[in-house]
Amino acid sequence: MLSRDRFAELAEEFGTPLYVYDGDALVDAITELRSVLHPALEVCYSLKANPNIAVVALLRGGGARAEVSSLAELYTALAAGVPADEIIFLGPGKSEAELCACVDTGVDAIVCESFAELARIDAICADRGVRARVLLRVNPASAVAGARLAMGGKPRQFGIDEAQVLTATDLDSRHPHIELAGIQVYQGTRILDAAVIAENTRSVLDLAERVAEHTGIGLAAVDIGGGLGVAYFAGEHDLELAALAKLLNPLLERFAAAHPDTRLIMESGRFLTARAGTYLMRVRYVKESMGKRFAITDGGTHHHMAAVGIGSFVKRNFPIEVFNREATDHEPWQVTGPLCTPNDTVAKDAPLPPLRPGDLLGVLRSGAYGPTASPGLFLSHGFPAEVLVHRGRAHLVRVRDSPADLLAPQRLPDLTSEQE
Amino acid sequence: MLSRDRFAELAEEFGTPLYVYDGDALVDAITELRSVLHPALEVCYSLKANPNIAVVALLRGGGARAEVSSLAELYTALAAGVPADEIIFLGPGKSEAELCACVDTGVDAIVCESFAELARIDAICADRGVRARVLLRVNPASAVAGARLAMGGKPRQFGIDEAQVLTATDLDSRHPHIELAGIQVYQGTRILDAAVIAENTRSVLDLAERVAEHTGIGLAAVDIGGGLGVAYFAGEHDLELAALAKLLNPLLERFAAAHPDTRLIMESGRFLTARAGTYLMRVRYVKESMGKRFAITDGGTHHHMAAVGIGSFVKRNFPIEVFNREATDHEPWQVTGPLCTPNDTVAKDAPLPPLRPGDLLGVLRSGAYGPTASPGLFLSHGFPAEVLVHRGRAHLVRVRDSPADLLAPQRLPDLTSEQE
Repeated sequence: MLSRDRFAELAEEFGTPLYVYDGDALVDAITELRSVLHPALEVCYSLKANPNIAVVALLRGGGARAEVSSLAELYTALAAGVPADEIIFLGPGKSEAELCACVDTGVDAIVCESFAELARIDAICADRGVRARVLLRVNPASAVAGARLAMGGKPRQFGIDEAQVLTATDLDSRHPHIELAGIQVYQGTRILDAAVIAENTRSVLDLAERVAEHTGIGLAAVDIGGGLGVAYFAGEHDLELAALAKLLNPLLERFAAAHPDTRLIMESGRFLTARAGTYLMRVRYVKESMGKRFAITDGGTHHHMAAVGIGSFVKRNFPIEVFNREATDHEPWQVTGPLCTPNDTVAKDAPLPPLRPGDLLGVLRSGAYGPTASPGLFLSHGFPAEVLVHRGRAHLVRVRDSPADLLAPQRLPDLTSEQE
Repeated sequence: MLSRDRFAELAEEFGTPLYVYDGDALVDAITELRSVLHPALEVCYSLKANPNIAVVALLRGGGARAEVSSLAELYTALAAGVPADEIIFLGPGKSEAELCACVDTGVDAIVCESFAELARIDAICADRGVRARVLLRVNPASAVAGARLAMGGKPRQFGIDEAQVLTATDLDSRHPHIELAGIQVYQGTRILDAAVIAENTRSVLDLAERVAEHTGIGLAAVDIGGGLGVAYFAGEHDLELAALAKLLNPLLERFAAAHPDTRLIMESGRFLTARAGTYLMRVRYVKESMGKRFAITDGGTHHHMAAVGIGSFVKRNFPIEVFNREATDHEPWQVTGPLCTPNDTVAKDAPLPPLRPGDLLGVLRSGAYGPTASPGLFLSHGFPAEVLVHRGRAHLVRVRDSPADLLAPQRLPDLTSEQE
C-alpha cells in the first residue's frame, strides 16, 4: 500500500480525480496466486476488470495470460505483450470481426457460447483453411451456492445448457475446422469463500469428464472460470489463498493425474487488480443539510459506479480514507460528487474526520471495474487520468479527458440552411 | 416517428449499434413546449440529457436556451450557437476552472449551491472587476409528492437548505461583486402528472417571494426547475401539455403580474429529447436456455444503461420493436447484449416476434440519458455512433469509437527495464 504522503504527492502532480494503481500490489497479486495454486493451473487475466494497457503489461510480466471479450481488449493484450497463443476470447455476442480477428491472430482458444457461433467459427476457418481451438461454454444445470452473482443453474445468455451439450454428439464431425478442445464454465463472481470456489471447480471438472465421455468434445483444456472476490464492505473478509490452495489443489492434482494432457485454466480479473487501485478525490465544498454533513468532491459516480453501489438495494460503502492528514474524531459524512443527481453518493454516513475543502479522499480497493465500468461521459465530465506507480516511479498511463476530447468525435452538420 | 424502413436503411448505412435522433421530433418537442406554456417562461435545455452538439444546435434553433453543468457542456452549448448570456450553469461541485469560465464567458447566471461557492464566485469577480449574476439554489424544507426522484425535503448535496437561506440576511452586502438575482429550485424528475409540476411551481414561486422578502436576494429571475417526464413503462402515460398549461399558466400569469420584471426559467432535458431517440441493435445470436428465449444483440448496457434499469428493484422494459419486418406472433424474449454479465439485459420477457440473427431491434424513447449516461468503455466496446435525421437527411453526429480510439489516451511505460 502506498503511503498517505505518496497519494498526496500524486494528487498534486497529476491532479484529481485520479485513479492510482500500485504496480507492486499488481505483481504481488499475480505472483501470489500463481505460486499458491497448483502449477498446472494457467491464470488468465480478465481484461474487463481493468483494461489499462500498463496494468495488463505488468500482470503479463508476472506470468498472467489473458482473457479478452472485445476487439479492443484483444488488441490491448497483444500491445501489452501477451502472445496471441496465450489469449482466450470469451463473450456471448461476438461479432464476425471479432471471430475473424481470433482466427487471424491465432488466439489460444475461442470460448464459444452457442451452436450458431460454432458454425460461424467453422465457416470462418474453412474460408481460411485453418483450424481453431474452441472451448465450449456450458451453462451448468445447477448452481453452486455462495457467489454474489451466480451464473449457473438459470436461463442465461451465456454458453449452452448442459442438457443440450450432453446430447450434441455430432459436434466434432459437423465442424471439421474446429478443434473442440474442452469446456469453460463460469459459475459466479465475487466469491469470498474458498470452499465455494473448490466446490465450483469440482463440479466443472466432473462436467468436463462427463462431456468428454458423451460427446466429441475433448479434454485438451478445461477452463474452470474463476470468480475470486475481494472484500469491499464491512463484515466481509478477503479470500484466504492458503485455504483455497488446500481445498483446490488436491482436486486439480487428482484431475491432472487422471488427465495428464489436459491444460487447466483459471480466469481472474477483480482478484488481481481491485486491491491495487485507489480512486483519489479532492473535497471542493463542505456543507450541512438538514443535520447531515456533506463533502462534495471532484469525483463521483461517473468514474466509480461500483463504489456508488448502483444496482444494490442497500448502499454500502467501499473503504474510504482521508490522505492529507491524520484522521481523528470521526463523524458521519456523505461523500458526493459533482453530478446533478442524488445517486452520486460515493459514501454514505462514512466515518471520516471533520472535512474541509482541499482535503484528499481515497476510495480503496478500486482497481477493478473502475472508470471503464462507469459512465465517464455523464454530464460531459470525461474519464479521469490513471497513474501506475511501479518500483517507486509514477507513470501516467491514461490521459485525462479534456472538453476538446469529448467534442472531437462529435459533428455539427449545417442545420441552419435547411431550417425555415 | 421515422418509418421502419428508414431505421433499416440507417442501420445499413451507419452500422449498429446506433443511436438515431429524429430532428423533427426534437424541434416539435421544444416548439410545442414553448408554444403551450406561458410566453414569459424561458426554457433552458439541460444538456446532461443529451449533450450531442447537433441535438443542442437543433433545440437552440427551436428557441431553447441552455442549462449546463460542466466545462465541456458549456463549450458544447457555445459551439452549438447558444449565446453565453442565454446559458445558466448548475452543479453542486463546480471547479474553480468552471466558475472562472462562467465569469469569463459571461453566462446569464451561475446557479450557486452553497455559501462557500458564493464567496468563491465573489472573489473571482473581484479579481476581474466584474459582477456576476447568481441564482441561489434552495433545498426546500418539504417535498411535493409525485416525482420519481424527489429532490427536496431531504438532506441533499444540492443547494442551501431553505432555513439557512431565510436567515442569511447579509448575503448581498457580503458579496459586492455578485448580483443575487433570485433562486432556483429543482423538486424532482420524471414527473408525469401535470398537477405535481404545477404544485412544485407554486411552491417555488411562494418560496421566491419569501426569500426576497426576508433576505437581500432579489426577484430578477426565478428558475422553477422542471422535471417533466416521459412515459417509458407499461401503465405510464405521457404528461399532457394542455393539462399542464391549464394548471401552470395561471400561476405564472399571477406571478408575472405581481412581479413584471422577474424572468421565469424552466429547465428541461428528458422531455425535449427522450422521445426523439431510438437505439438500434442487431440480433447476432438467438438461443434457448432452460425454456427462455434469448436474442443476443450487438447493443446493451454499455450504451443504454437506462433501458437496462440498473438501480431499479424490478426490471421494467423500455418500449422495444423489431424494425426489419412485420411483427406477428409475439412471444416472450430476453434481449441481451455482448457483455459478460447477466445484468446486460435490455428487455426481459418482451413480447416480440420469433427472432433470428440479423433482425433489427429498436429501443424507443432513448434520446435522453443514453450513451453519455452509460459505461461505454465497459469491456472496451466503446461508444456507439449517433445519427441525426433532419428534414429527411441523415447526418452522422457522433463517430463510433474504434479500438484505436480506446487505446489512444493510454500510455505503456517501459516497465521491463525496471523488472527483474
